Amino acid sequence: MPATLWTNARVVTADGGIDRAPQPGALEVLTEGGRIVAVGPALPRNGHRIVDCGGRLLTPAPIDCHTHIVFGGDRAAEFEMRLDGVPYTRIAQAGGGITSSMRATRAMDVAALVAASLPRLDHLLAEGTCTVEIKSGYGLSVEAELTMLRAARALGQARKVRVCTTWLAAHALPPEYEGRPDAYIAEVAIAGLNAAHAQGLVDAVDSFCEGIAFTPAQLAPLYGRARALGLPVKIHSEQLSPFGGTAFACAYNALSADHLEYATEADAQAMAASGTVAVLLPGAFYTLRETKLPPVAAFRAAGVPMALATDCNPGTSPLTSILLTMNMGATLFRMTVAECLLGVTAHAAQALGLQNVTGRIAPGLAADMALWDVDTPAQLVARIGFNPLHARIYQGELVA
Amino acid sequence: MPATLWTNARVVTADGGIDRAPQPGALEVLTEGGRIVAVGPALPRNGHRIVDCGGRLLTPAPIDCHTHIVFGGDRAAEFEMRLDGVPYTRIAQAGGGITSSMRATRAMDVAALVAASLPRLDHLLAEGTCTVEIKSGYGLSVEAELTMLRAARALGQARKVRVCTTWLAAHALPPEYEGRPDAYIAEVAIAGLNAAHAQGLVDAVDSFCEGIAFTPAQLAPLYGRARALGLPVKIHSEQLSPFGGTAFACAYNALSADHLEYATEADAQAMAASGTVAVLLPGAFYTLRETKLPPVAAFRAAGVPMALATDCNPGTSPLTSILLTMNMGATLFRMTVAECLLGVTAHAAQALGLQNVTGRIAPGLAADMALWDVDTPAQLVARIGFNPLHARIYQGELVA
Ligand SMILES: [Zn+2]
Ligand SMILES: [Zn+2]
Repeated sequence: MPATLWTNARVVTADGGIDRAPQPGALEVLTEGGRIVAVGPALPRNGHRIVDCGGRLLTPAPIDCHTHIVFGGDRAAEFEMRLDGVPYTRIAQAGGGITSSMRATRAMDVAALVAASLPRLDHLLAEGTCTVEIKSGYGLSVEAELTMLRAARALGQARKVRVCTTWLAAHALPPEYEGRPDAYIAEVAIAGLNAAHAQGLVDAVDSFCEGIAFTPAQLAPLYGRARALGLPVKIHSEQLSPFGGTAFACAYNALSADHLEYATEADAQAMAASGTVAVLLPGAFYTLRETKLPPVAAFRAAGVPMALATDCNPGTSPLTSILLTMNMGATLFRMTVAECLLGVTAHAAQALGLQNVTGRIAPGLAADMALWDVDTPAQLVARIGFNPLHARIYQGELVA
Repeated sequence: MPATLWTNARVVTADGGIDRAPQPGALEVLTEGGRIVAVGPALPRNGHRIVDCGGRLLTPAPIDCHTHIVFGGDRAAEFEMRLDGVPYTRIAQAGGGITSSMRATRAMDVAALVAASLPRLDHLLAEGTCTVEIKSGYGLSVEAELTMLRAARALGQARKVRVCTTWLAAHALPPEYEGRPDAYIAEVAIAGLNAAHAQGLVDAVDSFCEGIAFTPAQLAPLYGRARALGLPVKIHSEQLSPFGGTAFACAYNALSADHLEYATEADAQAMAASGTVAVLLPGAFYTLRETKLPPVAAFRAAGVPMALATDCNPGTSPLTSILLTMNMGATLFRMTVAECLLGVTAHAAQALGLQNVTGRIAPGLAADMALWDVDTPAQLVARIGFNPLHARIYQGELVA
């Protein structure tokens, strides 16, 4: 790939902020060998390949920093039953919820999981996404969790996309460990993590810290093991109640705490101190018809970077649109246009520890960019159920 | 086009209800000359062209029965200002709101309006839609309103889609008629309607009946003129307050009353008596962060058919996804899966007076169908920001 000069674009770098009315050609971008090598006005031509962007908006490629896109089955029948007024207890008795996804996922091998997940991944890529985080968490046994992460790695080979894998065995307690959460953490979450790490399958460790899942005390051995392995941690916390997961994870310098509807000002301050990103997940807020808003003002005041992600999962957020996620961030959480766009670029990268790899248009970073048939960031965020992607650029290559 | 037999599909006819678990091949569909000629099990082959649908879900093509997709400009900058905390009065002073869309629309000719609107139409078609209602209402002068409906008719020529046009001059009062609503109704809404009707540009008449728009008394001459011309009427009513528009329109046997968050049980009974469809618009509910829910239980109890539509417009519902509209109907309004699918098929057709033309898979109707890569209606409704369309079939022809 020769050096390429991207000209006549409305460039939004997401590097130090968002330009709300970028002008065509005011900035040019030089890429070479898959990376951005220069950004500035009127860069020298030097015989580079020139791409005329036609005055379109050029942004960092979106990053989906929180997904569960690898799973078997779906939960549409449950969705239908709830709308028909079937009580939740009867749905649970009928084998609903995470247990239903666990059974379907355990029945699949890597190839079957890849086949089931590719349409979801492809929808994310069709909106320009170049980096996708994928969690385990529906296997809930050592082997089934490893299979999920192998499927996630295979998805990264099947498409031109950067996949980050996250070990989320501590997602729910499977029926065979009923009443024995500590044993589950030791025998599955930690033992499996050791195996996943040895096999190069895992980039970060996560958990669901909630009354219906695990307590900080139960999770402490897992997070200690992650630290010993040198793996960064994340957490699903304060989604349904103020449960203490955020403060717990900050003590491990978590990359991110995610959901956070019930987080407090003290949580925000702890996150600021530990450099933890707030990953907000409006798709789950919408699907669960939650009314408690995450404390966006407290995050702003404390200087906590906010990211946005789909949380794509079969139950509480069957969402595969990063553009709609931005619109929901604005409409439901009243985040500004700049916050929404930073939330799926620079701040999403930081939530994955990739701030020096991708998420901004800046020298030294991967040339992961998206070219859109709009003029301004606001036009990307304001529309609902519309995809103006003109081209996806992954590591300097047009791949849309 | 020879007679075609559509086999091995999971057929949901939307004719008398929705089958929640249709089996492949249990019903077959015979089409000829753009129409459905037979539906039933094991239809005779008779040398017909056979299309094997691969076990996919076959439904009536979606119908978007309430849109404002023809307009100039966009209002993303306003969206951004509101999120930045700029007070509404300052946005209005800066020329925001419908006035902004009016100025941009008046500056465009038919060709420019078609070019601006085609990407929005194409997104609807990409989700299988075969019938789209398009309203005027951003011209607010006789000539500019006629230009909008000419653009709507031209869109129907530019793509394989059935376009229904609606005269909505009574959408807002333009600045030049400030304080003179009766004069506007006489000189623009009624005079323009006469011209539009004479030119074959109009299929129905609509208005915005609300404190910020027009009262029933102001609208009565317009609705009287529509009746004299033999044109069916519709209304935007009870969106922001209980204002009486629904009862007013029922007296003219309105095809539909639309929005209806503030409608009452008495409204529901009046609608049942006049055969008026309730068109619910969750995109506007979502964008405005409305909390008052439309009285779905009252519509059910009174036997009022409910339709769902995008309300695609530049301000309060910049939504171009009929699939997301169904999901919002379920998630936000707690409509069942069957109600959501009937809402964009059989009931949407009825809201346009097209119940004997399209909206069901039944003999005699247009062969407008959508083939989806899913097994059940619930899988169409449960997902968010995902498009499983395999093929769009317009008048018996594969056109996706
Ligand atoms: Zn999650
Ligand atoms: Zn409308």
